[in-house]
Amino acid sequence: MSRLNAVLRQIDDGLEAAMKRWFDLLRIPSISAVPAHAGDCRAAAAFMADLLNAIGVAAEVRETAGLPMVVGHVAGHDRSRRVLFYGHYDVQPVDPLDEWKTDPFAPALVTGDDGRARVYARGAADDKGQLLTFIEALAAHMAVHGRPPVDVVILLEGEEESGSPSLEPFLRANADELRADMALICDTNQWDADTPAITTRLRGLVHDEVTIKAAKADLHSGLFGGPAHNPLHIISHIIADLWDDDGRVSLPGFYDGVPELPEALRTQWAALDMTDEKVMAQMGMQPPPAGERGYSALELNWARPTAEINGIGGGYQGPGAKTVIPAEAFFKISFRLVGKQDPLKVRAAFRDHVRARLPSGVTASFADDDGGASAAIEVDENAPLVRLAARALTDEWGKEPVMMGCGASIPVVASFRDILGMDSLLMGFGLADDAIHSPNEKYDVACFHKGMRSWARLLDALT
Amino acid sequence: MSRLNAVLRQIDDGLEAAMKRWFDLLRIPSISAVPAHAGDCRAAAAFMADLLNAIGVAAEVRETAGLPMVVGHVAGHDRSRRVLFYGHYDVQPVDPLDEWKTDPFAPALVTGDDGRARVYARGAADDKGQLLTFIEALAAHMAVHGRPPVDVVILLEGEEESGSPSLEPFLRANADELRADMALICDTNQWDADTPAITTRLRGLVHDEVTIKAAKADLHSGLFGGPAHNPLHIISHIIADLWDDDGRVSLPGFYDGVPELPEALRTQWAALDMTDEKVMAQMGMQPPPAGERGYSALELNWARPTAEINGIGGGYQGPGAKTVIPAEAFFKISFRLVGKQDPLKVRAAFRDHVRARLPSGVTASFADDDGGASAAIEVDENAPLVRLAARALTDEWGKEPVMMGCGASIPVVASFRDILGMDSLLMGFGLADDAIHSPNEKYDVACFHKGMRSWARLLDALT
Repeated sequence: MSRLNAVLRQIDDGLEAAMKRWFDLLRIPSISAVPAHAGDCRAAAAFMADLLNAIGVAAEVRETAGLPMVVGHVAGHDRSRRVLFYGHYDVQPVDPLDEWKTDPFAPALVTGDDGRARVYARGAADDKGQLLTFIEALAAHMAVHGRPPVDVVILLEGEEESGSPSLEPFLRANADELRADMALICDTNQWDADTPAITTRLRGLVHDEVTIKAAKADLHSGLFGGPAHNPLHIISHIIADLWDDDGRVSLPGFYDGVPELPEALRTQWAALDMTDEKVMAQMGMQPPPAGERGYSALELNWARPTAEINGIGGGYQGPGAKTVIPAEAFFKISFRLVGKQDPLKVRAAFRDHVRARLPSGVTASFADDDGGASAAIEVDENAPLVRLAARALTDEWGKEPVMMGCGASIPVVASFRDILGMDSLLMGFGLADDAIHSPNEKYDVACFHKGMRSWARLLDALT
Repeated sequence: MSRLNAVLRQIDDGLEAAMKRWFDLLRIPSISAVPAHAGDCRAAAAFMADLLNAIGVAAEVRETAGLPMVVGHVAGHDRSRRVLFYGHYDVQPVDPLDEWKTDPFAPALVTGDDGRARVYARGAADDKGQLLTFIEALAAHMAVHGRPPVDVVILLEGEEESGSPSLEPFLRANADELRADMALICDTNQWDADTPAITTRLRGLVHDEVTIKAAKADLHSGLFGGPAHNPLHIISHIIADLWDDDGRVSLPGFYDGVPELPEALRTQWAALDMTDEKVMAQMGMQPPPAGERGYSALELNWARPTAEINGIGGGYQGPGAKTVIPAEAFFKISFRLVGKQDPLKVRAAFRDHVRARLPSGVTASFADDDGGASAAIEVDENAPLVRLAARALTDEWGKEPVMMGCGASIPVVASFRDILGMDSLLMGFGLADDAIHSPNEKYDVACFHKGMRSWARLLDALT
């Protein structure tokens, strides 16, 4: 039996025991956003440190200004290579509780009408089930062969669901200890139940808030309407002018650094059969998609930048009519960025756009600059470790992984890049219907099992 | 001494006593919008009925579904002509109370640094002080000559500040009793402290509310942004498209029935020295005015129609950023109308404008149609009774009255026209700084005194 086959057999034979450990972790209500659960979060950290030590990883709970990190180290057979695995032991709040069919912290194993077994619990997928796929694969390697193939560092965070305030200070304070050849993150999805995926593109994000002030006080729309400047009209013009007739963002220089999609990726994505109809139907909408003409809905979400209004408020908000011209009004905007778009340049261009549309005497004020601004992440689909991971997934699943984009940001990836100079491999086994952040979160047992086997193959392939 | 001079002398000699009656009325907190003050409103109605009976007008308090009307009748020397005087005995709420320098229901006589005496109280002007200028003029005529020159009907309402729900039913139920050659209303302003005015133009009003729905639920702007339709973007385009580059409302047919201003009136208004600078400064703004190019700020407010957004709401309204694409958003709009613009045609054109801008699958719903829709009012500046009033004002003030427009609506004028077939003469003695509807409302004693004398002259001129 090959070195790898023994590990895979260890995983198959140990599935029941691994699920027991998974269930024990799920029973701890480690909701980081709720201060009353701080003790539970610490219990989850202790649980993970104990588990790591039990399998032979030297792990400890490390304090921060907030909830603690769990850090573990184990030397591999090959000391020349080192990977860092990142996951988080905290979970989302459970509201609205009355929409849960089972107790969110009493994991329930349910076999669906389709014959697939699923575990229902808060954190079943995000991220307790996902992070255990790696830890269990590592445990299997160590159980069979004494050590993992390469050096492994484990970093588990307890504040991912509440903004990660302690993460960057901890990375800075422990950079040498944590730096590795690459980070491995298990917090993303497969393409579908039968098809693995590696996420190689994450959009960046910059946001802003604008308050427009015109009159010195709210005005009666009859006594003053006509000559009076109305901030709601001005805001509407500012927003409508953000796009040209082809749906492209009109800010000067906005597309600087936006790459065209590589033809190979465009072809692969087109072959996914994720038609505009399907993407729009997921949102309760119909094609054609909003946004830039000439791109599919999938391309618009995975590979194109956006300007998005997240809120407008001003004037009368109650029932019925009120003849008011408000003195001021506001809107909130965010830009999703790709490629090498510079978030600060985008924000500056947006502010110029606003100022250029103010009538004489009307003022605009902006949110403080310290709001987050992160550039996009792109991992080269042809990087050696990405190719190794693709091979491991192909071996396990019998088909090539989809190289996916993700419209959202995963801030830890930018933190690893900026602070530790380290790229990330985003390989996860969630499914679109896992209901993370919602009631009745679940993780398929097949995802858990094949996730472990996939990581075991990748670890084996590293030497 | 002429018939009129005796009346004017009666008014001058009785000023102190008239002010005492005014103060007594002001002490009654007849706030119609506040149910706890219903008893006070009824007390004010009884006060007015008693006052009318005391001067010889046969008056009574008449019940409605809401607060009562006061109706009085007195026959004139000349029975061939009849006028109806309308006023309202209710007042606005007093919030914010802590901004009042004196108790709003303890009238305070204060002489300003400019030597002018003013009475501070809620309702000092609107409408208790104003309506008493007519009642006291009538009383003086009757005291001197036994009867007024012509038949007079008095109609005092108690719900003007809370939407007049009982007015139109009362007019319909008592049409024959109330119909007159013309209504006299004292609820508008002079041009300035030295210059009288007759208001001959009131803009009409139609409003609507639109809710745009796109997604089936709020969406994450990263995971879905790009192809997703954002109701806030759609609303911004709908609103921005409401005007062309010259600031004209772009709805097809919107300007049907909008007359150009008569050259004589344009010349008179231009001579008022109410420059764009002054109009904009009143609002805390700078020229050029918003709205249609080619009109002065005064013309835009008095004689041109508008589309005005009164409120927009949707998406995240709290502090900081939230990466949401809201499932729906709304806005409220009102149109001010002039000339023969048809409010229902304007609303229909607006709804077509909205529907034409909805992406496939996105829906718009509108407020119920029963919201108010009133056409503009224009009184012919050359109508005989208007000319009589202008002569009376000229005699009293030593200068011609300004024929003013008013950007707002006064719904009772439309009700009189539509239900009783009766035009209204809007002759009032308020000043722009009276702070009606605001803390520290006041009415100048000179306005009260010369207002009485002006009405006495008009009554005298009716025969």
